[in-house]
Amino acid sequence: MRIYYSEDHRLHFPQAELSGGQFVTPFERPSRVEYVLTRLRERSLTDINAPAAVDMGPIRTLLDPGYLSFLETAWDDWKAEGMAGEIIAANVPARGMHMDRIPQNIDGKVGYYCHASETAITRGTWAAALSSVACAQSAQRHVAAGADAAFALCRPPGHHATADQYGGYCFINNAAVVAEMFRNSGAARVAVLDIDFHHGNGTQTIFYDRPDVMFVSLHGAPQETYPYFIGYADEKGAGAGEGANLNYPMTAGTGYDLWAQALDDAIARITAWGAQALVVSLGVDAYKDDPISFFKLESDDFTDAGRRIGRMRLPTVFCMEGGYAIEAVGVNTVNVLEGFKDA
Amino acid sequence: MRIYYSEDHRLHFPQAELSGGQFVTPFERPSRVEYVLTRLRERSLTDINAPAAVDMGPIRTLLDPGYLSFLETAWDDWKAEGMAGEIIAANVPARGMHMDRIPQNIDGKVGYYCHASETAITRGTWAAALSSVACAQSAQRHVAAGADAAFALCRPPGHHATADQYGGYCFINNAAVVAEMFRNSGAARVAVLDIDFHHGNGTQTIFYDRPDVMFVSLHGAPQETYPYFIGYADEKGAGAGEGANLNYPMTAGTGYDLWAQALDDAIARITAWGAQALVVSLGVDAYKDDPISFFKLESDDFTDAGRRIGRMRLPTVFCMEGGYAIEAVGVNTVNVLEGFKDA
Ligand SMILES: [Zn+2]
Ligand SMILES: [Zn+2]
Repeated sequence: MRIYYSEDHRLHFPQAELSGGQFVTPFERPSRVEYVLTRLRERSLTDINAPAAVDMGPIRTLLDPGYLSFLETAWDDWKAEGMAGEIIAANVPARGMHMDRIPQNIDGKVGYYCHASETAITRGTWAAALSSVACAQSAQRHVAAGADAAFALCRPPGHHATADQYGGYCFINNAAVVAEMFRNSGAARVAVLDIDFHHGNGTQTIFYDRPDVMFVSLHGAPQETYPYFIGYADEKGAGAGEGANLNYPMTAGTGYDLWAQALDDAIARITAWGAQALVVSLGVDAYKDDPISFFKLESDDFTDAGRRIGRMRLPTVFCMEGGYAIEAVGVNTVNVLEGFKDA
Repeated sequence: MRIYYSEDHRLHFPQAELSGGQFVTPFERPSRVEYVLTRLRERSLTDINAPAAVDMGPIRTLLDPGYLSFLETAWDDWKAEGMAGEIIAANVPARGMHMDRIPQNIDGKVGYYCHASETAITRGTWAAALSSVACAQSAQRHVAAGADAAFALCRPPGHHATADQYGGYCFINNAAVVAEMFRNSGAARVAVLDIDFHHGNGTQTIFYDRPDVMFVSLHGAPQETYPYFIGYADEKGAGAGEGANLNYPMTAGTGYDLWAQALDDAIARITAWGAQALVVSLGVDAYKDDPISFFKLESDDFTDAGRRIGRMRLPTVFCMEGGYAIEAVGVNTVNVLEGFKDA
């Protein structure tokens, strides 16, 4: 399986994550990727390539232009305003406020374009986010050209980023861009299967009213975990997209038996719907030792999950999402890929 | 003029405020009150009284019961979850998410009940907030019993707190509770005049659809400053409250000439409307040296403003709100009170 990876992910390394009322070293850190690379090489998955230059076309089509401009200049604007730290949102348009008025002030703009304050923007965030989505785009092109599958070792991840909001360590929604590119390259129906522990709120909202991209997510119940206010089972799509959104929220302590049942159901639904291409939001934070999650998957379970996904026999792009039990991230991620290959 | 003050404000002293991407010592700190007390005594305003016990009746009528329960138990719930720091919101229901689903998890609940992450909850916050509103209530009772005016030296302040959200250093909306109590004690129409530099979003939203309480605010334009997403001139009230909400947003650098014009207009509107009692949200962060504001009032201007307010000849309760140029907070606050007395 071909892998796309860019060293530029290292340009995004915030020093601080707001967690439990303190600043901690971010759970989403560059070393996560190093563990994946090491494990890929251990398992002789060595077709690791630098991505082609980013193609802003499908990104600009899918995402809000004001949001992209904001991301591009946020660091300079923040520093020009004399801010001492990294960019962390302190104010957002909250319940009872205007949701559609964008402040002129950079501190206010940050709040407008952010949905969670744990995520910092740094000097190198925009460049890293572009390198991440470039990996996803190269993987899509490789599959669109005939390969069975490809793995985009994206960092920063993407599935929490909406068309106009960052948060949850995500800035540009890589999986959504891949799905859009599959549509452009001829797939009439594209499914995004999100197996990250957290609900892929960004991907869901981007495609919520579209009938041509199905979003399916297995995740911790929103009453109990981030992103808290989205990811319920009754979110089924809107308008023309009604029925093309499927959430499997599961409670704390969920093990592989229950999780695999949800996966099988998800796969059956994707198959019945007639997807012609598949994007997998590949987070491995459903792992039992993940520090910010509460599912109980074992490492071998990820192999089995990959096998089930592989049996769909769909052209597939894997986009790396979360996974914070650092030393196990490599094994679990590669287990999914190997299970897929062996299907 | 009688003053109500409780030492219990000191129970609320967060160590951290999220500002410019860093934790800084909170601008809203206990010493603010000490400067006011010192200045009151210098000017022989020594009728300083401890408040009577808080009366939860009007508070429970006006505010959301779930919110009050949350505030009461938040610290214990947060610590029971193993959180290391003070309570700081990292996630809120953002644009595109459910605004009406309350998480079970304390981290999620904090986000639900918060509208800005600069404000920390500490062990003593609930007790301090109750002591603050108790001061406001005692001041209201004193005026309802026949006094011309009283000053509630409230801390923490209140005007940013809505019926179910804290933020902007505020937890319980003291001014709103006073307005409600004026209604209960026989005033058919009550006006809240908010001269704090920041828009009183909490007070506005609490009374937005009510015809019996007029809210009038002079403040920094929301495009340029906190709370960013509310406080526009086109917010005029809703339903039966249409026309009973009046915002005067003003741009950076506004001096007393322009500000006093807005004040005169506000006073004319309150008078024409037929208010029978007045609550003044008395912030003094319109001062030229305030570190988080951008108006240019001089200390003498506060005396003149107090005089203009006094000429309304309405039974008046002053509730302390913001003001962060610490050493000038005392002079500027007392200047308003002295101007009022001399009107
Ligand atoms: Zn995740
Ligand atoms: Zn203020």
